[in-house]
Amino acid sequence: MSEYTVTFNLTAAGCNAQMQLPLQSLVRDIIDAATLHANSLGFGYARLIEDGNAWVLSRLSMQISRFPTVGESYSLTTWIEGFNRHFSERNFEIIDAAGTTIGYARTIWVAINIATRRPADLSALTGLSGSVSQRPCPIPRQGKIKLPESFPNTTDYTVCVSDIDSNRHLTTARYVELVVNTLSLETCDRNQITEFEISFMHECHFGETLTISSLFSDNTLVAVIADAQGIPCCNAKITLSPVNL
Amino acid sequence: MSEYTVTFNLTAAGCNAQMQLPLQSLVRDIIDAATLHANSLGFGYARLIEDGNAWVLSRLSMQISRFPTVGESYSLTTWIEGFNRHFSERNFEIIDAAGTTIGYARTIWVAINIATRRPADLSALTGLSGSVSQRPCPIPRQGKIKLPESFPNTTDYTVCVSDIDSNRHLTTARYVELVVNTLSLETCDRNQITEFEISFMHECHFGETLTISSLFSDNTLVAVIADAQGIPCCNAKITLSPVNL
Repeated sequence: MSEYTVTFNLTAAGCNAQMQLPLQSLVRDIIDAATLHANSLGFGYARLIEDGNAWVLSRLSMQISRFPTVGESYSLTTWIEGFNRHFSERNFEIIDAAGTTIGYARTIWVAINIATRRPADLSALTGLSGSVSQRPCPIPRQGKIKLPESFPNTTDYTVCVSDIDSNRHLTTARYVELVVNTLSLETCDRNQITEFEISFMHECHFGETLTISSLFSDNTLVAVIADAQGIPCCNAKITLSPVNL
Repeated sequence: MSEYTVTFNLTAAGCNAQMQLPLQSLVRDIIDAATLHANSLGFGYARLIEDGNAWVLSRLSMQISRFPTVGESYSLTTWIEGFNRHFSERNFEIIDAAGTTIGYARTIWVAINIATRRPADLSALTGLSGSVSQRPCPIPRQGKIKLPESFPNTTDYTVCVSDIDSNRHLTTARYVELVVNTLSLETCDRNQITEFEISFMHECHFGETLTISSLFSDNTLVAVIADAQGIPCCNAKITLSPVNL
C-alpha cells in the first residue's frame, strides 16, 4: 500500500488543559503511523534490525488549522514522497471525524546503525522504490530554523526514567513536551499552535541534564535543547495564533 | 451494562525503555475505561456537570503479574462494586491478548463540586444502584500507605503546561510518572512493578513547585508529593520484583 491510514480517538485523560490533543501526542501518533506503514511495507523495525539498523526521526514540520478535541476521532494518512540511500521523506495528512483536512506534516527519517549511531546505507531495501506515492503535500519542505543571537530564557531538565524510549534515548514526544513547556498556561489558553518544526541533531540519555533555551516573541517560540556539554540536541519552532475566547 | 470492556494496543512510541506499557499509561487507560463506562451508564461527565459536579479519582491500587509489551493488545474490564452518597468503588481486570488475566485494580472515585472542590452528594444519581456488579475482585481493599519517619531523597518539580489536564490540575498520570521517576533506569531494567498504590489528598496547579520525597528499600518505593506549603498532595507505593535478565 503506497498510502496508509490510522484512526485515533482523543480520550478525556489524553487531553491537555484546553481539552484538545496535545502537540506531543500528535507527534507520537505521527511516529506510530509511520512505524505501522513501514512495518506493513516490509521495511519496518524487523527488517532494518536484520542489518543492525533502525529508523530515526530527523525532522518534522507541521501546519494545522485546529487540533482534535475531547472524544473526537481523527485520522492520519501517510505516504512516502521520496527516498535515497540515507533517508526517506514521509508525509502526513491530518483528517478530522467529518473527513475535513485539518493539517499536514512532513517528516525526514534517517536509518542509522544502532551500534555505531552512524547513517546506514539503505540500498539493500529495494522495495522502497515501489512504495513511493505521487500524492502531493501542500506544505513547503522544511528549512533551517533561524535561531536568535541570544535566548532570554533558559531552564534545566534532568532526563528521567519516564522520558526514555525503547531505543534507550529521550523519546521524541518528550522533546516536543519540553519545548511546549517553555510556554505559560495563559499563552496556551489564549493561542493555538498553527505551525511546528523540529530538527534532531544529537541523542539524549538517561540522567543527562539538558538546558532548554527559548525565545518567545511575535507569536513565535524558538527553542534549543542542548546537553551538559552545550551540544545542541534539537532545535524547534512553534507558531501561535490568537484564539477567540 | 454492569461491566464494560475497552481494548487497547501498545504502540512502539507508547513503550517505555523496557518495551512495555508504562505504569502511568496503564493508569491513564484505567481512567479512560472508567470514564467511558460512567458515560455509557448515564452518570458520566455530562450528567454530573448538570449539578456542577465532577468525578475525581481518590485512590487506586493494583496488582499485576506482567505489563503488556510492544505491539500487544490488552483489555480492561471494569465494574462498580459499590457506592454511597459520596464515593463509588470501581474495579478493573487487566487481560492480555491471549485472554489471560494479568492483573486487577481497585479505584475509589469521589464526586466533588467543581466550584467549591468539596464532596458532592450523589443521592440524585438513582441509577447508580442498578449498575452495581456482583463480580468479585480478588485483590484486597486498599489500606493506608505506611510512611517512613523520614525520606532520604527529595527532588523539586515545577508543574508545566503539559502536566495540566482538562480540570486545570496536575493530571493523574503525571503524579504517577513523578513517582516512577524517583527510580533509576537500572532499577527499572532489573525489576518489574508488581504492586502499585496511590492516594490523592490535594490538587496541584500550574506553576507550583512540588517536592517529591521518596524512600526505596527492600524492593519497595514509598513517595510523597507535597506542594510548596508542605501540604501532601499524594502518597504512593510501588512494589518491585527482580526480573530474570
